Amino acid sequence: MRRTRPFRLPALLLAVVVVAALAACSGSTRGPAPLTAADPMPPAEWAIAIHGGAGTIPRDIDPQRKADYVAALRSALELGSRALADGERAVDVVETVVRSLEDDPLFNAGRGAVYTHEGTHELDAAIMDGRDLSTGAVAALKTVRNPISLARLVMERSPHVLLVGDGAEVFADEMKVERVAQDYFHTEQRREAWQRALERKQQQDDKDTVGVVARDVHGDLAAATSTGGLTDKRFGRVGDVPIVGAGTYADNRTCAVSATGKGEEFIRHNVAHTISTRMDFLGESVETAAEAVVHRTLKPGDGGVIAVDARGNLALVFNSQGMYRGAADSNGRFEVAIWEDWE
Amino acid sequence: MRRTRPFRLPALLLAVVVVAALAACSGSTRGPAPLTAADPMPPAEWAIAIHGGAGTIPRDIDPQRKADYVAALRSALELGSRALADGERAVDVVETVVRSLEDDPLFNAGRGAVYTHEGTHELDAAIMDGRDLSTGAVAALKTVRNPISLARLVMERSPHVLLVGDGAEVFADEMKVERVAQDYFHTEQRREAWQRALERKQQQDDKDTVGVVARDVHGDLAAATSTGGLTDKRFGRVGDVPIVGAGTYADNRTCAVSATGKGEEFIRHNVAHTISTRMDFLGESVETAAEAVVHRTLKPGDGGVIAVDARGNLALVFNSQGMYRGAADSNGRFEVAIWEDWE
Repeated sequence: MRRTRPFRLPALLLAVVVVAALAACSGSTRGPAPLTAADPMPPAEWAIAIHGGAGTIPRDIDPQRKADYVAALRSALELGSRALADGERAVDVVETVVRSLEDDPLFNAGRGAVYTHEGTHELDAAIMDGRDLSTGAVAALKTVRNPISLARLVMERSPHVLLVGDGAEVFADEMKVERVAQDYFHTEQRREAWQRALERKQQQDDKDTVGVVARDVHGDLAAATSTGGLTDKRFGRVGDVPIVGAGTYADNRTCAVSATGKGEEFIRHNVAHTISTRMDFLGESVETAAEAVVHRTLKPGDGGVIAVDARGNLALVFNSQGMYRGAADSNGRFEVAIWEDWE
Repeated sequence: MRRTRPFRLPALLLAVVVVAALAACSGSTRGPAPLTAADPMPPAEWAIAIHGGAGTIPRDIDPQRKADYVAALRSALELGSRALADGERAVDVVETVVRSLEDDPLFNAGRGAVYTHEGTHELDAAIMDGRDLSTGAVAALKTVRNPISLARLVMERSPHVLLVGDGAEVFADEMKVERVAQDYFHTEQRREAWQRALERKQQQDDKDTVGVVARDVHGDLAAATSTGGLTDKRFGRVGDVPIVGAGTYADNRTCAVSATGKGEEFIRHNVAHTISTRMDFLGESVETAAEAVVHRTLKPGDGGVIAVDARGNLALVFNSQGMYRGAADSNGRFEVAIWEDWE
């Protein structure tokens, strides 16, 4: 028996080395990560995440105001969940839910948009369909009630992907979308924030940008994001929201992402697309990829992201004090939150 | 002696397995790829690549016109090479060379920009500094002689990274950059192309976008791109050029990239940033990463890219019939080309 021992030790070593080498290699595996022990639930038939912006949200926020935000998030999440459960397409659902958030004056998108330095409102939005990477975006809009729907029309009814300013307004004329006067976007809260910004001569976080990502029952992904941008921004400034790859991205092979926070940092680091490529090139899960980008690539306080993968796994990750958010899926998850703990 | 043989075979096997495992793993190695046998030259102290657009460039182009393009590319390449050899910073050199190409009416950037559907000119540009990912971009400019220099000022003198339309013009007022009337951008050739596009009712390739990437003697990378966009484009349309991550990207850790071609495809696939992440996450060389994106991710005819890595390796890759381009480095390379073969 002793003669076999010399073989055994190297054979064991061999096995250890192969396993270690394969483990070291796992970072380069292509395609979606396999289900792991950390995924006790079966893949969701549908899943949705929403955000209403990330930033410095004081814990001692007025209780009524907090209740208003929670109710608004629940309402939007219900709208999206019902539509997905009814079999609606992800790209339709993200548009519908973002429209509802644009119409809600609590959020910095559509009605309730912040003031520019010049005292006007300028709106940006983007939508992307993970089925074929088709995408549409608009920036520096002044009169369009629902920027996300004009972004959708850019995607489907123009040969372009990004229209800005007066040219986008002319396109809005042709598409006959609903128009409003600038005072439609006004809220007293945003006007006061602008006044305070002018006095302090510094810009504010754009903490109430809205976004939605969804995985539908057909297995398709989509993302949509809409914002009024930064309080006191220079007019003509475009943040990350309408920049495909920065604030918005969707690819059925990887994930759908919508971001919120300091737009310039999200552009510089191509945040949404980096989460997608980490999954594609490093084989990371949507949660691991989102955490790597938010906690390692970005700086504390920059903001956060919501993301969903092709199996309906959701990631809601932020490095700011809070992020208005909600998550729901066909396995019964339904929750909204503002700070680290879920409500 | 025979007693040691059982150890030797497994030890050899072990070595083979480890080497094979490491080879299999090389795809996930971080950082620049090592020099290989295919790199006979030492790393370049400086290197530069330029492009004047990619697209359908007929082989039977008028000989005088071809000579004009070759002379213009040589002139721009000499300007950049001299500056880099003199120790100038990459970010300064890419701006200087793009300015010279903007001033040349041969190219679709600055003077010589194409006509929009409405018969106007609208200019886009972006610059990125690989040292710290600082970046600036402008879109839908109407009166700025050198858009690339306004993009540089957005990077250095504003808190934003992208300014568009009238807001960008107001910023240009404050920065006191040189302004011109719209007819400064006029060339008879572009007017005729616009007329032909109107008659055929279809858009043209924006084949003469300009771009420069450089690696300076300090080891820093930068990229700059400038364009008049698509002939007959809808006004307000923004292509890939000012979209950081799509048409322009620079990161000292990986590469600097400038793209040219069908802008919407370059946005959808985040072309410039994908080349950077392939190098970062898959350990590919700049050449391999650029070829993967141009030949596998994009479709034939979409366009091309120029890229440089931190060692001064250059990649000039396109899938269209031609790409006006030039490459030079401190090892004595100096060449320009239009089609597959170098001149």
